[in-house]
Amino acid sequence: MKVYSAEQLHTFCQKIFLKMGCALSDAIQASDILISADLRGIDSHGIARLMGYVRLWEQERINAIPKIKIIHETPSTATIDADKALGLIAAPFAMKLAIEKAKISGTGWVCVKNSNHFGIAGYHAMMALEQDMIGIAMTNASALVAPTFGLEKMLGTNPIAVAIPAKNQPPFVADFATTTAANGKLEIAQRKNESIPEGWAQDKNGHTTTNAHILKENGALLPLGSDREHGGHKGYALGSIVDIFSGVLSGASFGPWAPPFPAYIPLPTNMPGEGLGHFFGAMRIDAFQSAEHFKQNMDVWIERFRNTKPINNHQTVLIPGDPERIIELERKLNGIPVDDEVVKSIKLLTEKFNVEL
Amino acid sequence: MKVYSAEQLHTFCQKIFLKMGCALSDAIQASDILISADLRGIDSHGIARLMGYVRLWEQERINAIPKIKIIHETPSTATIDADKALGLIAAPFAMKLAIEKAKISGTGWVCVKNSNHFGIAGYHAMMALEQDMIGIAMTNASALVAPTFGLEKMLGTNPIAVAIPAKNQPPFVADFATTTAANGKLEIAQRKNESIPEGWAQDKNGHTTTNAHILKENGALLPLGSDREHGGHKGYALGSIVDIFSGVLSGASFGPWAPPFPAYIPLPTNMPGEGLGHFFGAMRIDAFQSAEHFKQNMDVWIERFRNTKPINNHQTVLIPGDPERIIELERKLNGIPVDDEVVKSIKLLTEKFNVEL
Repeated sequence: MKVYSAEQLHTFCQKIFLKMGCALSDAIQASDILISADLRGIDSHGIARLMGYVRLWEQERINAIPKIKIIHETPSTATIDADKALGLIAAPFAMKLAIEKAKISGTGWVCVKNSNHFGIAGYHAMMALEQDMIGIAMTNASALVAPTFGLEKMLGTNPIAVAIPAKNQPPFVADFATTTAANGKLEIAQRKNESIPEGWAQDKNGHTTTNAHILKENGALLPLGSDREHGGHKGYALGSIVDIFSGVLSGASFGPWAPPFPAYIPLPTNMPGEGLGHFFGAMRIDAFQSAEHFKQNMDVWIERFRNTKPINNHQTVLIPGDPERIIELERKLNGIPVDDEVVKSIKLLTEKFNVEL
Repeated sequence: MKVYSAEQLHTFCQKIFLKMGCALSDAIQASDILISADLRGIDSHGIARLMGYVRLWEQERINAIPKIKIIHETPSTATIDADKALGLIAAPFAMKLAIEKAKISGTGWVCVKNSNHFGIAGYHAMMALEQDMIGIAMTNASALVAPTFGLEKMLGTNPIAVAIPAKNQPPFVADFATTTAANGKLEIAQRKNESIPEGWAQDKNGHTTTNAHILKENGALLPLGSDREHGGHKGYALGSIVDIFSGVLSGASFGPWAPPFPAYIPLPTNMPGEGLGHFFGAMRIDAFQSAEHFKQNMDVWIERFRNTKPINNHQTVLIPGDPERIIELERKLNGIPVDDEVVKSIKLLTEKFNVEL
């Protein structure tokens, strides 16, 4: 493990994106999103993914100089063709458009097709906060999840993020995969050679398993709620809604045909749409009521929930966004620890592009 | 148990709502929603609740002749003061307004304060379908759910419904409480004197329990995902989003201050807003792409998911909305079975209002 400052990693990412041919503003934007993941402790979605984007670019599945186009719009909506852009570029483009629509119409809703992995959903949702808006972001992803009663992988981990501003309290920021556990948690267990809890995944026969390597053995992740008895069908419905809003509505590919992130996995045949899809929303608070009054009440909400009588006095009730904010403060001070595997991939990138970290 | 036709129950509900002083059109609308729950197999939200509405009306917590007002609006949004209307009246009013906004602006988003229990969320979301729109409905509810790490009941079972049209396939209709199990499931176990699975509820010390009566013993329901290890914090976030969109955004009460449905439970003190809150959305499909093309792709989506290789050949993968649709077909033919307890409450109502079933 090595520790780098956010600035070091940001500069390095920028150099790589520039070598791919990205415009400087795009390289900065994309690096911002990746390093934001590392700062917020979502290590699976930060610099660890940089090599993955490079490999997709090498396969021409990412276009470093895309012509992103609005192909359909109304006063409160738009659909965007991302022209195979980095999702890290298409997503903020779409979110900014949603915010502009909201300024005029009260809310803005933008879906995106022909895109790629967009980093952490929370980054995009949080763009709405400084405008006194609620931000929403979701994306489909390559299939790793079996629907309730099913054996096949049909859905991605399809995250949802919702960011809601408060007044004196930090904002409410929920950002979660619609599965019991994100794939990154299985990867951590694999590296540590540990087993996983029952309810996270099933084996090739549909039985619950504690084997962290089960996805490589024809297993599947389980939707939030795990099995039918514990509400897994609700997680399946939720992941499906994300797939339909992001994929079907935009004209992207969807379900088991969503394009995979690892470049060595061939694209599915007979894809029903183009690339990955995302869905973004921005709702102006003052399209519903006084923003000031709402934010005061959000403070009331947050303070009351934070002061819920806890089960154990050493673990108080958290507000969505608390853990990430605490890690971010710490990592801005002390730097970002980078895993040996990821350090290796960084070294490969320095050699491939003849740049330094 | 007795069996009645939907028409019989519908007529009876109408009579009761008329006796409460509702306008005829309101009585029909409210009855429609209640009987729709019974037809769809959501027995806890149908005629079984009629007595509950009457008791709230007796306490003057429901206003049978409300002046429902739009108190704030933009081209794509509105906030409604329901004037203590039956939620069964306020909700379709708000959903119709969302649909009208969507016709003009692409999408419509309406939140409601000062309301009451609105029946099944799915009914309202499904109103969008015949307009080739996606419908969304959610509501907060009186607190039964403990947040992750918490001992107190802070959130309602806060349901979300999303209805999405298809072409030749029936629509996708998800309608679910953001808890591991709805309270109705605990009530069924209570009546049968059965235990409940671990992960549905916790006892007064925050330990998992199989006691179906635990809510009466200072226990709490658990959010979708159950404990922290199985993603319960995601269900907590989801229920919170519903509470904030429905309650805080509209100016309704929220969190542990949401007004309780049982009329014998006093209102919380220091309520931060008025009544219960709801949130509705309508998105015109052709605000994003051709509605025809979208619905064709929804057929592709639905057929592919329905044909997922199943774990057991006798239980295929279902599409959200399938189980309710199947029960509805059957109950339209064979009538609605009504529990003895509910038959008793109907008898009480016939006596109270001097009407016949």
